Parts: sequence; C-alpha cells; structure tokens
Amino acid sequence: MNAEFDFDKMNGLLPAVVQDSRDGEVLMVGFMNREAVEKTLEKGYVTFYSRTRQQLWMKGESSGNRLKLVSAHTDCDRDTLLLRVEVEGAGVVCHRGTRSCFTESVAQLSQRTAETKAAVVKETR
Amino acid sequence: MNAEFDFDKMNGLLPAVVQDSRDGEVLMVGFMNREAVEKTLEKGYVTFYSRTRQQLWMKGESSGNRLKLVSAHTDCDRDTLLLRVEVEGAGVVCHRGTRSCFTESVAQLSQRTAETKAAVVKETR
Repeated sequence: MNAEFDFDKMNGLLPAVVQDSRDGEVLMVGFMNREAVEKTLEKGYVTFYSRTRQQLWMKGESSGNRLKLVSAHTDCDRDTLLLRVEVEGAGVVCHRGTRSCFTESVAQLSQRTAETKAAVVKETR
Repeated sequence: MNAEFDFDKMNGLLPAVVQDSRDGEVLMVGFMNREAVEKTLEKGYVTFYSRTRQQLWMKGESSGNRLKLVSAHTDCDRDTLLLRVEVEGAGVVCHRGTRSCFTESVAQLSQRTAETKAAVVKETR
C-alpha cells in the first residue's frame, strides 16, 4: 500500500501535518511509522507513533477528541503527509486545552525569553 | 532568541509547515536548524536547511517564488514551526510546477502502486 513512501530520511518516520478540513487551521504535527500510516488508513482515525514513548497512539483515544480522516495527501518527495480531519468530541486537539497546538507566536516566545533573561539578570545582580 | 526551541528531538532540526496566509492551503514542509530559523526571522523570508545537501537554502531564491513571512508560531512542545507566508513571483512552491507540494492523494498513490504491481505480475507471467 505505502511501498512508495520514503521512510528513510527520518529513520522510519514521516512527519504528518494535521489540518482541520472545515477551515484549514493547522492543528498539530505528529510522526508516523509504516504501521501508524497503515492503521490510520485502515481505521479512518489518525494514529501516530510517539517518539518519546516509542509506541503507537491513536490521537484522542482516551479524551474522545479523535481525528477522523477526511483525506490524506503526500508531497512530491513522498516523505511527508498532509491529513485533513474532522475533530470529534470537544474539538480540542492540544493537551493544553486549545484547539490547535500552534498557539505561541515566535515573537511572543522571543519576548518571553527576553523577559526571562532580564529577570534572571535582575535577580543575580 | 530561539533558546527555548527543542532542537534535540530531530538532531538539531525542526519541521516547518508552510501555510498560505491568504487561504490556509498547506504548501510544503521543510526543515530548519537554528541558523535557518534565525535567518528566516531576520530576513523575513523562509530559509530551510536541506537535509540532502546539508546546507541552508532560501526557498525561491533562484526561481523568484520566495516565501515572505507573515507570521511564525511554535507548538506546545516547541519542536515544530508553523509559518504563514505570502508566495512571491509566480506563486508556485513545488519544483513540479504546482502551487502546493501536496498534490498526490494517498488513495491515488495506493491505486497507482496496485496498478504497477498488477502490471509487473502480468509482465512476469
């Protein structure tokens, strides 16, 4: 089925971008090994491979916020997936309680890092 | 600036999802090392790190289809970037001449793989 995916560039994994099929919001990026891709296509719900836990996990299996697959595309190099989904349950994808995981702007991050540094400098004076 | 990004999970790289800021279309996924992130934020145009060529490359530098940065967000793990952009030049991102790199549906890919297999079986009979 996925004989043509290129799993070699990332030691057996493909990054998978999850996008809300209704409004195009990018919700998260996860990683998939061959088994996770097969399970996702077979079940119609997104299953990732956790790099930290080194095991498969169906996103939202316990919370109910499962990602129902609407379409799956690969790119010109066949080393990445774009999955359009409908979020079930409360519609919350991030474990922090937000819809998308991409909530922190890099400008905010830079600002906060600068403030932390300034506070540290102040404290250590 | 990016002291808080987690570059450790992918040997110094972050995947960066590039999304059209006007209509939300996901155009491509590239990878960035610390230097590529810094250059992107400094110049306001997306620069990746090429894993195959092992060097920085400003996307569209020769073709003119540069990716002008509109916003940059990171996720809850700080190991991925979401870059919203305006595509300059002819608006073509993929080297194959399409706007997005994600043109091949996995169903089509499966179909084509199955057809190739069937043809091979037929030929070798």
